[in-house]
Amino acid sequence: MSRDLRYLILADGSFAPEHSKTANACIRYTPQHVVGVIDRAQAGRTAQQVLGFGGDIPVVATLEEGLARGANAVLIGIAPPGGQLPESWVALLARAIEHGLDIWSGLHSFVGDVPALAALAKTHHVEIHDLRRPPPTLRVANGRVRGVSATVVLTVGTDCNIGKMTTQLQLLGALRERGIRTNFAATGQTGILIEGRGISVDAVVADFIAGASEQLVLECAEDADLVLVEGQGSIIHPSYSGVTYGLLHGALPHAQVMCAQPSRTAINRCDWVAIPPLVDFIRLSEAAAAPLRPAPVIAIALNTYDLNDEAARRAVDTVQRETGLPTTDPVRIDVAPVVDAIAAFHASRPRE
Amino acid sequence: MSRDLRYLILADGSFAPEHSKTANACIRYTPQHVVGVIDRAQAGRTAQQVLGFGGDIPVVATLEEGLARGANAVLIGIAPPGGQLPESWVALLARAIEHGLDIWSGLHSFVGDVPALAALAKTHHVEIHDLRRPPPTLRVANGRVRGVSATVVLTVGTDCNIGKMTTQLQLLGALRERGIRTNFAATGQTGILIEGRGISVDAVVADFIAGASEQLVLECAEDADLVLVEGQGSIIHPSYSGVTYGLLHGALPHAQVMCAQPSRTAINRCDWVAIPPLVDFIRLSEAAAAPLRPAPVIAIALNTYDLNDEAARRAVDTVQRETGLPTTDPVRIDVAPVVDAIAAFHASRPRE
Repeated sequence: MSRDLRYLILADGSFAPEHSKTANACIRYTPQHVVGVIDRAQAGRTAQQVLGFGGDIPVVATLEEGLARGANAVLIGIAPPGGQLPESWVALLARAIEHGLDIWSGLHSFVGDVPALAALAKTHHVEIHDLRRPPPTLRVANGRVRGVSATVVLTVGTDCNIGKMTTQLQLLGALRERGIRTNFAATGQTGILIEGRGISVDAVVADFIAGASEQLVLECAEDADLVLVEGQGSIIHPSYSGVTYGLLHGALPHAQVMCAQPSRTAINRCDWVAIPPLVDFIRLSEAAAAPLRPAPVIAIALNTYDLNDEAARRAVDTVQRETGLPTTDPVRIDVAPVVDAIAAFHASRPRE
Repeated sequence: MSRDLRYLILADGSFAPEHSKTANACIRYTPQHVVGVIDRAQAGRTAQQVLGFGGDIPVVATLEEGLARGANAVLIGIAPPGGQLPESWVALLARAIEHGLDIWSGLHSFVGDVPALAALAKTHHVEIHDLRRPPPTLRVANGRVRGVSATVVLTVGTDCNIGKMTTQLQLLGALRERGIRTNFAATGQTGILIEGRGISVDAVVADFIAGASEQLVLECAEDADLVLVEGQGSIIHPSYSGVTYGLLHGALPHAQVMCAQPSRTAINRCDWVAIPPLVDFIRLSEAAAAPLRPAPVIAIALNTYDLNDEAARRAVDTVQRETGLPTTDPVRIDVAPVVDAIAAFHASRPRE
C-alpha cells in the first residue's frame, strides 16, 4: 500500500463490527491511512465506539467532512451480498473524483467500468482501483502447487466473516518474528488492500477458482518457507461454498486452521443452515481435502468479540477440550497457541 | 434449437469418444443437424467409425468440404482445458463467416469478443452464439429453491466427461413417457446447445455459481414436477471442484444419481488424484450435500463404452452388489433401472 494514502471509508448505513468487513480490517491493520468513515446513521461517534478498536478515527456524515480532514482517496468499505455498486453511491463517487480523490473498491461491480465515473476519473487524473478485478490471464489448476517446498496453511471457517483473514494477519507478524520466512496469500479484496497484492478468487470465472488459488500460492512461495492462505466462505455456505472448495483444492494446503464463532449456530443471513458441532465440521473439512492432499486441522481460532471475558475464556476451554486442538482467540487473547501449532507442524512435516 | 441448422463441427485433432464432448453429444442427440466434422487426422472416416454412433456423418479435412455438404453454421465441438480459442482457428472462423455461416461456440474465450470476428459477422449478417456467456444479471444464492415443489435430481460423477449430461438426456425422454412432467436444467455449453436454454455455471463469476444454479432450477421448475439437473465436474477434481460444489449447494437436489466409469481409476489428466472406491465416494457426495439438504444417491449410471459386453455386464453387477443401488449403463444397456429409481423416489418423497 502506498505510504501517503489517506482514506475516507464509505460504509454508509453499515458501519458495525459484524458488517463493514473491509472498513474494519483497514481500520485495524492500517489505521494510519484512515481519516474517517462515512456513515450518516452514526456520525459523531468514533471508530473505537463503534468497533471497539480504531481509536479516535471519526465517523462523519458527508464527503465534505472527509475532505476537510485531508482525505485523498475514498475506500468502499462495505461488501453487500453480490457486491453490487449501490446506485446512490455513484453520485458521491463522482463528487469525490471531481475533488481529485482516488477510488478504491472491493465490489464485484467494477467502479472503473461505470462509464461516467471512468470518464470523470480520466478528466481529473485520478485512479480507480478495483481490488476484485482478476488478472488478465489465468490457467486451469493442475496441481503444480505440489512441487512447492513451502508449507501451505489455509484458514477455513464455519461461515463467512468469522476471522479467516484476521487470523492470518495476526499470525503473519508472529511467525516472521520467530524467524520463519512467511508470506500472506490474499484471496479477497480486503486482504489485497492490506497486503498490496493477491487475487480475489471469488471474482474469477468459476472454472478458474482453483487455478487462481494455485497461481497465488506459487507466487507467494517464491520467497517464503511458509505461506498463509486467506480462506474464503465456508464449505457449508449456500451462496459461496464453491469458492471455498475451489480455493481448498487449488491451494492444496498441508494444514488447516479452523475459524469459528462460539455464539453463531447458523449461517449468517441463511439461518436455515445450521452449523454442525465443531468436531463434526472439522471432520467434514478434512474429508473435503483428503482425496487431493490430506490437510489436518491443527489449531482453532475463535472469534469471541460478542462474549464477555469469562464467557470467551470458557468457550476457548470448551473447544480445546472437545477437539483436542490448540485453541485461542487470536485477536482478543493471544495468537501464540496457533503460532506454536503452525511452527511445530512446519518443523516436523515430512518433506517429499 | 432452430430447425434448419446444418452444423459443420470443428474438432480438429481431437475427434474421439473420450475428447470431443460437445461434438459427440451433438452427433448423438441431434444428428439431423450435423453435416460433417472437421478433423484432418481422421478425414475420410465416418462418425460411426470414430465414435461407435453417428452413422455416415463424414469426417472431412476442410471448411470447403463442409460447405459443399450444405453447412450453414460452424460449431466448435471440442472443449480444451480452460476453453481458450486456439489462435489457428480464428482464420478458419473468419473464412466461415465470410461464407455466411453462423458460429456456435462453447469456449470460455468468447468468439463474439474477438474484434475482427465480431466486425466480420456484422458485415456478413451472421450470428455468433457464445453458449457459455452468462446471463446479464445473476443473484447470490439464498436457498430460494427450497420453496419449489418439484423434485430435483442432480447427476454427479467421479470425474469430468463421464456421463452426467448424457445420463440426464437419456432419462428425460423416458421419464416424460411415464407421464411425469420433467425438465432438463442444462448447466454446460453442450447441454444448452441441445436443450436450447440453460446457464453455463462454470462461466459465471465464482461468487455466483450457486446463484446461477438456483436461478436455473427455479426456471425449470415453473412447468415441471421433476427437474433433472446436469452435473458438472467432480467434488474431487483439482481444477473444477468449486463448480461442482457450488452447483450442488445452489441446485439443492433431493437426490443424486452417481455417474462413474469402471475402468477409470484416477482423474483424467490429473492422475495424481486417485478415485476412491465408489462406496466411499457416494458417502463423500452425500456428506457434501447433507448440511444444506440431504440428497441420497439413489442410482448409479455407469459408462462402460471401453469394455466388452461381458465386462460391462460384470461391472454393472459388481457395482450393484457393492452399493446396493440400482445400477446400469443408461446408453449401452437400459436407462430403465435409473428411471424406476427416480420415479419411485419422486412418488414417495415426503412433501414439506
